[in-house]
Amino acid sequence: MSVKKIVVLPGDHIGPEIVSSAVEVLKTVEKKCSHLKFEFQEHKIGGASIDAFGTPLTDETIKACLEADGIILGAVGGPEWTNPNCRPEQGLLKLRKSLGVWANLRPCTFPSKSLLKYSPLKSEIAEGVDFCVVRELTGGCYFGERTEDNGSGHAMDTWPYSVEEVTRIARLAAWLAQTYNPPAPVTLLDKANVLATSRLWRKTVAKVFKEEFPHLTLKNQLIDSAAMLMVKNPRALNGVVLTDNLFGDIISDESSVIPGSLGLLPSASLSGIYGQTENLNCLVEPIHGSAPDIAGQGIVNPVGTILSGALLLRYALNAHKEAAAIESAVEKVLNDASIGGRGLYTRDLGGDAKTVDITKAVVEELEKIL
Amino acid sequence: MSVKKIVVLPGDHIGPEIVSSAVEVLKTVEKKCSHLKFEFQEHKIGGASIDAFGTPLTDETIKACLEADGIILGAVGGPEWTNPNCRPEQGLLKLRKSLGVWANLRPCTFPSKSLLKYSPLKSEIAEGVDFCVVRELTGGCYFGERTEDNGSGHAMDTWPYSVEEVTRIARLAAWLAQTYNPPAPVTLLDKANVLATSRLWRKTVAKVFKEEFPHLTLKNQLIDSAAMLMVKNPRALNGVVLTDNLFGDIISDESSVIPGSLGLLPSASLSGIYGQTENLNCLVEPIHGSAPDIAGQGIVNPVGTILSGALLLRYALNAHKEAAAIESAVEKVLNDASIGGRGLYTRDLGGDAKTVDITKAVVEELEKIL
Ligand SMILES: CC(C)[C@H](C(=O)O)[C@@H](O)C(=O)O
Ligand SMILES: CC(C)[C@H](C(=O)O)[C@@H](O)C(=O)O
Repeated sequence: MSVKKIVVLPGDHIGPEIVSSAVEVLKTVEKKCSHLKFEFQEHKIGGASIDAFGTPLTDETIKACLEADGIILGAVGGPEWTNPNCRPEQGLLKLRKSLGVWANLRPCTFPSKSLLKYSPLKSEIAEGVDFCVVRELTGGCYFGERTEDNGSGHAMDTWPYSVEEVTRIARLAAWLAQTYNPPAPVTLLDKANVLATSRLWRKTVAKVFKEEFPHLTLKNQLIDSAAMLMVKNPRALNGVVLTDNLFGDIISDESSVIPGSLGLLPSASLSGIYGQTENLNCLVEPIHGSAPDIAGQGIVNPVGTILSGALLLRYALNAHKEAAAIESAVEKVLNDASIGGRGLYTRDLGGDAKTVDITKAVVEELEKIL
Repeated sequence: MSVKKIVVLPGDHIGPEIVSSAVEVLKTVEKKCSHLKFEFQEHKIGGASIDAFGTPLTDETIKACLEADGIILGAVGGPEWTNPNCRPEQGLLKLRKSLGVWANLRPCTFPSKSLLKYSPLKSEIAEGVDFCVVRELTGGCYFGERTEDNGSGHAMDTWPYSVEEVTRIARLAAWLAQTYNPPAPVTLLDKANVLATSRLWRKTVAKVFKEEFPHLTLKNQLIDSAAMLMVKNPRALNGVVLTDNLFGDIISDESSVIPGSLGLLPSASLSGIYGQTENLNCLVEPIHGSAPDIAGQGIVNPVGTILSGALLLRYALNAHKEAAAIESAVEKVLNDASIGGRGLYTRDLGGDAKTVDITKAVVEELEKIL
């Protein structure tokens, strides 16, 4: 049995509080599953790294991440790092780039039905929402050449994509769709009635599905209608939602408010597919920020980070059963919280439970399940 | 008293049904207000124009529109026009371009409080939403040079903006904010942490507000957070929401589902500001499409088009009192509908009223108000 190296990057403010919850849950998995052995190694990133080393990401941290089997990140940033040329976020963007994680997975679902009441959407609209946004993460207008307006009165961004970049992420989306039972439909979001790159996406994704995954359902949706549908009838997008870097940034954030608290949702960034890609890199993190306003009080919701740990097990270590067990444990705790009143909801859900209360409850449930 | 020329472009499918409602309402205004005199002139556009002349927009129609004081459009498109090189939508895009209408105004509010129950958002979240999206309409990645993938495996879009383009729309947004009492805040949406054009927008808009409108409140919001906020707490965007062509396309569509039916909302596209711009062009249209499935049955909701007529009065003819009167009449009819049961709701709102019923009721109310 090989030991799996997991790099832990707590980051700033609430970061250390939430990653320690996730680590505790992963240690419970390790304790109960004799075939899994973890070695955790902690490193600084973001503001914490700026304070210690003058840079938001050191070469040493990058090296450790590249050698790891998986990386779990808390959150970076805060109002105290004001130098525009040395921002905590730059550490995160540089890490994504160094790891070559070109696919960002953002599942959007209710970890417990009891949370429906927290959705800004009416319950009958939000109920049953269950999709995963697959966002391209290292291309498009995020990484095209640009011309700043340095006095000319003109600026320009460019938005390049290649068949190669789109093919690999189309395959990843199809692979993900096949992990559902029955296989999930894949909806490609683009603006093919305007953009050349969207037409490249549409053509390339259609080709990959036709030639390699003819049994899967591929749908097309313009990004503007998708932004409507996400509010009006989000279940119509259930399954896998595939899209480019910028559209993915917007639509995944739009979708993330549906379950009622940003504190609930995980994400995973991947450089490929387990078993198909050599030296697979996998970086998981909750989707919320570093929340300086509530740091240090022990009241942050650890669920998004705990569920990120589950994604690490699933996508980096192929440990599906264990990932599902964490998800079930979280669901159980949140269901119980709704029955027993507010006891085990954190403040973002109107409760007064502490981070450690939730973590302890999840660990206990997990010990029963595994 | 000069006669105001209004070009009427019914377009396709339900188009003729809804524009005739708006025209009837405008004729009521004319009848009651001796200082207003209209001359209506009808032309074809979209599929109707393809069928008659082989092109979705003739030079004759463009000429008539350029000479008009205002243009009212129904909707274009339908499944029967299948030639990709001769699509009804091309007529609309060409018309916008020929008219040079660089600002698209999309008010988002509930025409009647009784409609809150139709929103996909919970009532307490949707209540009091009242903003106007100002979208740049003739620049950005819609009109930059592009490279299609013609076998090279690469495509690219470009996304140019100039200080000039941004300055004029910043002024229009500020002017619009000043029409509110008290003046409304303006929120600029961009992706300034990534895009050079967004940084140009941010800098330019800040300069215009600082130098020319120092009394107005200008806020910045990243487009991804705005897409969240639009669902989680849309009132936070109340006032004027200023943004670029692509972001405006996405965010205005996202917002348009809040009031519960696309059939309720109007839009106006302008080439400048009344009283400040020579040969001002103004094209108004409902935000919904041509709805082939319900065409010819007389059941379409005319409210979005009737309210578009109000925008034409306000922005093209400076007839504020009359515009507000139409809006009040619509509100009264929808309020009454909610009291009297489903009687005066059209099918999109779960009722069985006909297009003509709504139109007649609005006309009657308007006659009382004016
Ligand atoms: C910080 C920003 C550049 C980043 C992005 O747009 O990718 C963030 O919004 C995200 O989605 O992780
Ligand atoms: C048809 C399409 C090109 C158009 C746009 O994106 O501008 C439409 O979505 C709109 O918003 O009017």
